[in-house]
Amino acid sequence: MNLGQQLSFLIRNTPIISDPQVIDCAINGITDYFACTLQACHEDDVHKLLAWIADEGGNARAWLIGQKKLASARQAALLNGFQAHCLDYDDVHSDVRGHPSAVILSALIASVRLDNAEQTIDGRRFLTAYVIGIEVMALLGQSINPQHYEKGWHATITLGGIAATAAICYLYDEPFLSQALTLAATQASGMRLLMGTPIKFLHAGLAAQHAIQAVEWLRAGIHADQDFLDDKLGFLAIYGQGNTRFDLSHWGKTWKIVHPGLWFKNYSYCSAAAYIADAGQLLYRNANFSVDKIESITIFFSPPQSDAALIYQMPLLAEQGRFSAEYVLALTLLGLPLSFEQFSAKPIANGIKNLMQKMKRSYQIQLTPHPQAYNQRYVVVEIVNSTGEKLNQRIDLPKGSPKNPYSQRELSLKLVKAVGDQKTTDNLLKDIRALAVGLDLHTFLLSYLLKL
Amino acid sequence: MNLGQQLSFLIRNTPIISDPQVIDCAINGITDYFACTLQACHEDDVHKLLAWIADEGGNARAWLIGQKKLASARQAALLNGFQAHCLDYDDVHSDVRGHPSAVILSALIASVRLDNAEQTIDGRRFLTAYVIGIEVMALLGQSINPQHYEKGWHATITLGGIAATAAICYLYDEPFLSQALTLAATQASGMRLLMGTPIKFLHAGLAAQHAIQAVEWLRAGIHADQDFLDDKLGFLAIYGQGNTRFDLSHWGKTWKIVHPGLWFKNYSYCSAAAYIADAGQLLYRNANFSVDKIESITIFFSPPQSDAALIYQMPLLAEQGRFSAEYVLALTLLGLPLSFEQFSAKPIANGIKNLMQKMKRSYQIQLTPHPQAYNQRYVVVEIVNSTGEKLNQRIDLPKGSPKNPYSQRELSLKLVKAVGDQKTTDNLLKDIRALAVGLDLHTFLLSYLLKL
Repeated sequence: MNLGQQLSFLIRNTPIISDPQVIDCAINGITDYFACTLQACHEDDVHKLLAWIADEGGNARAWLIGQKKLASARQAALLNGFQAHCLDYDDVHSDVRGHPSAVILSALIASVRLDNAEQTIDGRRFLTAYVIGIEVMALLGQSINPQHYEKGWHATITLGGIAATAAICYLYDEPFLSQALTLAATQASGMRLLMGTPIKFLHAGLAAQHAIQAVEWLRAGIHADQDFLDDKLGFLAIYGQGNTRFDLSHWGKTWKIVHPGLWFKNYSYCSAAAYIADAGQLLYRNANFSVDKIESITIFFSPPQSDAALIYQMPLLAEQGRFSAEYVLALTLLGLPLSFEQFSAKPIANGIKNLMQKMKRSYQIQLTPHPQAYNQRYVVVEIVNSTGEKLNQRIDLPKGSPKNPYSQRELSLKLVKAVGDQKTTDNLLKDIRALAVGLDLHTFLLSYLLKL
Repeated sequence: MNLGQQLSFLIRNTPIISDPQVIDCAINGITDYFACTLQACHEDDVHKLLAWIADEGGNARAWLIGQKKLASARQAALLNGFQAHCLDYDDVHSDVRGHPSAVILSALIASVRLDNAEQTIDGRRFLTAYVIGIEVMALLGQSINPQHYEKGWHATITLGGIAATAAICYLYDEPFLSQALTLAATQASGMRLLMGTPIKFLHAGLAAQHAIQAVEWLRAGIHADQDFLDDKLGFLAIYGQGNTRFDLSHWGKTWKIVHPGLWFKNYSYCSAAAYIADAGQLLYRNANFSVDKIESITIFFSPPQSDAALIYQMPLLAEQGRFSAEYVLALTLLGLPLSFEQFSAKPIANGIKNLMQKMKRSYQIQLTPHPQAYNQRYVVVEIVNSTGEKLNQRIDLPKGSPKNPYSQRELSLKLVKAVGDQKTTDNLLKDIRALAVGLDLHTFLLSYLLKL
């Protein structure tokens, strides 16, 4: 067996997972996914894409979540992925350096035919498929990151399509899994260049579409019999930078959805800026802080390149500020809210620009990383006042990250805010939990088709 | 203006081309495209994809060439691209190191709405759009090849989607061209790993689909405002290997469709093996040749890596033989025809295998390249007989390549073979020529919708 076949063998022979800790992580991921996607279902760009879908037409089969209608599986994957990611509010995984659930759950849900619910799908199998998707995405990321990401690839899409293909094929026990992984891999694209534009979010939808296409075209009988992990011409060889150790020895013993776990967000900027936001908020509350006294600000990143996602040092539009350490820091130091409104497609105000101009980035810092830090990352923000006084704030484990998580109550509140009413939210939470004891996935999806 | 905007400016301001030499090249390209796509329209895999399209559904707007029906623009792009390339019978460009017309013409034709032919499209504008598509694809290829191809990318798809996007946007004079190029670039994928499987051919369809998606999503109002030629995070930076000189200084003065020109095929194997086929056929006719006397065969490639496309040294299936110097040479030395049948998905016979086992490849050769050679390439096949006698054959300019072209009669015969009758072929040839004097593209396509 080649490496792709070995991976496929392990996936296909994974028993349904019942470990409560793993299941709890999967339930949290699904809960957060619904919160993100429903929060975004009225966004302008989502409705532009919906209009395009209506214009293209197609047989109505798969759920456009939050839109009370069905579309083709490809269209649903594209729309759901775009929607889930379009506020940059969805979960992150540090091995992936990207957003796994927006892709994997969008593809899994789009794969379910709601026009023909005679077939049943055990909710437990769905949860395991999701865990496997996260696992494949994180293993691929671990193998080629940080170089893959730093080179300029957007890992959410490059790794996401392959991961979602693994998840769908597990869900339906497809015998062509290893070929489907190859067909997904040869569709892998997506540049970080697009960050700060809506296409960054469309990448999540495209990755989900890649997975649907891989599965549907193999079902149609088109073959793709190659090893996507071939060491000369395969995915890791081409998309990695020579660092391609792909380790399957822990398969099924620990799961990446638990360790290091998903990183949830209660904000609409890149998680790399979460360090900055936490530091800014603490500095703002410091008794010696006054924004008027600031002479200069240095943002220290360690290790170097850990700010690769934060490509805007002087953004012009607020939506670019999602990927700007300077913009997020300026908002917090001005006491402004980190609300969705602050990251829309409007120009940035002069007061914020003036403050950003006092900032610079530095990588000249060599403190000992926190023993629990993610990829040894930390940030220090240092303010020098006009009096010469210095204020410092260091952040190692940002709020929302797996080792400094939101409470269950905070996650539920995120869902209530998106759903809009408590009763529907409570039912949804109850039904997501019921998947773990075998609720049929068709029944689950159909019962919310017109309610969400 | 950034580099992507400069390119877009040049494209949008290109006048309709009337130079007869350029137009003749475009007409030959379109003629060959119809020959390839019609030759393939009954292939099994094409019909599998057609069944998938029928199952997905969608508004019927764009021509599925040779199938007498319409589909959505995305579906038509995918099917037409797959079909045009699926016998590996379609044109090649040495700067691209891939197949330009299968992608560009498939996308252009799929972009035309045949359900609403009130709008007219000047056939001359269509020809210029095609010439521009070839130009963009060849310029990108020239910038990052041979390293891009040698790394493992399949240039037909990675470069094709961007090129086809340029062509479509020129055709309709879309103001968002530079954004569309970016949206196409972030979809660029495709690994050479897939050669020898039908996915190699699907890559042409995927590239055409990338272009349709880029254009339709921008028309829907989704923005992609970045420079796809950004020198740090852009297409050439990520898909090149550090060799990214993108030269626009000759725009509009010479056209890549003329120099170095399209390379046409009358066979179903990779053009890199055309050197081998020509050598084998000449050796077979050599008075001192007898297959029974062969002790060993050495195939010398220069420069090294010029056999990168020929990934199978000992193929097991005949379809893999499209990318095997050894298989193509064995066929010719055994006096077997190089017909489509010899490259189908069946196992390779033992007699052919035994002959392949006598072959080895070598790069230890340093003759002076032919002054007109493509990328300084040449091949020498050397046979050593059991008597110790040696037979040599060198090939520099294979038959069908721009400097050793097929005659107009040979190209017409290729079209007749595919169309099946002389009268329809004559009309088709006449109407392709009429595009050059302004025949409306809608009228042209509609008149053949049910005839081909």
